[in-house]
Amino acid sequence: MNTVITIGREFGSGGRELGRRIAEILGYEYYDNEILTEIVKHTELSENYIKEIVEGKSHRLFPITVEHTFVAGCDYTIQQVQNIYRAQTEVIKDMATKSNCVIVGRCADFILRESDVKLFRIFVYADMESRIRRCFERAPEGEDMDEKQMRKYIQKIDKGRSSYYEDYTLQKWGDKSNYDMCFNTTNVRIEEIADHIASIFK
Amino acid sequence: MNTVITIGREFGSGGRELGRRIAEILGYEYYDNEILTEIVKHTELSENYIKEIVEGKSHRLFPITVEHTFVAGCDYTIQQVQNIYRAQTEVIKDMATKSNCVIVGRCADFILRESDVKLFRIFVYADMESRIRRCFERAPEGEDMDEKQMRKYIQKIDKGRSSYYEDYTLQKWGDKSNYDMCFNTTNVRIEEIADHIASIFK
Repeated sequence: MNTVITIGREFGSGGRELGRRIAEILGYEYYDNEILTEIVKHTELSENYIKEIVEGKSHRLFPITVEHTFVAGCDYTIQQVQNIYRAQTEVIKDMATKSNCVIVGRCADFILRESDVKLFRIFVYADMESRIRRCFERAPEGEDMDEKQMRKYIQKIDKGRSSYYEDYTLQKWGDKSNYDMCFNTTNVRIEEIADHIASIFK
Repeated sequence: MNTVITIGREFGSGGRELGRRIAEILGYEYYDNEILTEIVKHTELSENYIKEIVEGKSHRLFPITVEHTFVAGCDYTIQQVQNIYRAQTEVIKDMATKSNCVIVGRCADFILRESDVKLFRIFVYADMESRIRRCFERAPEGEDMDEKQMRKYIQKIDKGRSSYYEDYTLQKWGDKSNYDMCFNTTNVRIEEIADHIASIFK
């Protein structure tokens, strides 16, 4: 049975880096933007449009919850969003079937909850100051922002992640009861903890 | 610098067992009821009375928060509660100074937050069904209870822990932002995960 580690993360918490390093250490496949690329192939929609949806920027316009309620596809846009949701589910289930892997974001923890894999659902978080600092360190994203702007930017990204997750799963994003382990990366260097956390899965 | 692992835990989550096993694996001291015994020595109050206070059963009668506000000890009972709080703080700081250790409960995560130790604050939790099952397995506590009674009993104990922690620390008990790592023990056997979690600290 494959081991699959899913990583949910607050923006700027270093969760993505942690996921990448854990995958490297364990020799697992690592999936992040690859998921988006695969959804593009499945749906033949543009990458930008799909990004808008999966980053929670526009799907709240469409009150649908694919996993829980069937909504007749009378509207073309609703159908597209449903297609993206379905493609995401297929792509992630397919990745989990292939080999041991680490999957970042995309509601993978929820999608794989009843799959035949050894599933570890991780959530990574940190206090705001620490996240702002980390974002500035990994420029160029924050190159033109001051601290206040960066704080707003982080909050905006997290709001998108949270609303996308909650619409899709009907669960609260970041609520520890939805995860097996949560790690606080406040004042922590990811490269220093990755080895220790990876050792849990050895 | 000593490594100190503090364990906060929901009742029935197996947090205490996890702490004991981690201490065994790492060869650390393990402090749990020992803290109560030490407080008895420091205050010369009865163990039962101290238990009432530190398990959150009666201190809400006394609106004091020792770490944050000084309240003149004009009332004998208030003074006793303050003495217990102070003794607890001294005992825990003393334990952390002596050697590497695991400390279960007693707001140790908060008490040691600025101490000169390598501090790891863990919180252990699980869903209610799993906790009820675990409590029945480790009878005799639940010997005479049915499932409904056990649920109420668990909720009562947690309410005491939560109110004691929150009065003492002004922080929310179980809120992941107050901990470095949180572990969900739903459907998990503690003896199977203890080794993996202990490896984080090696």
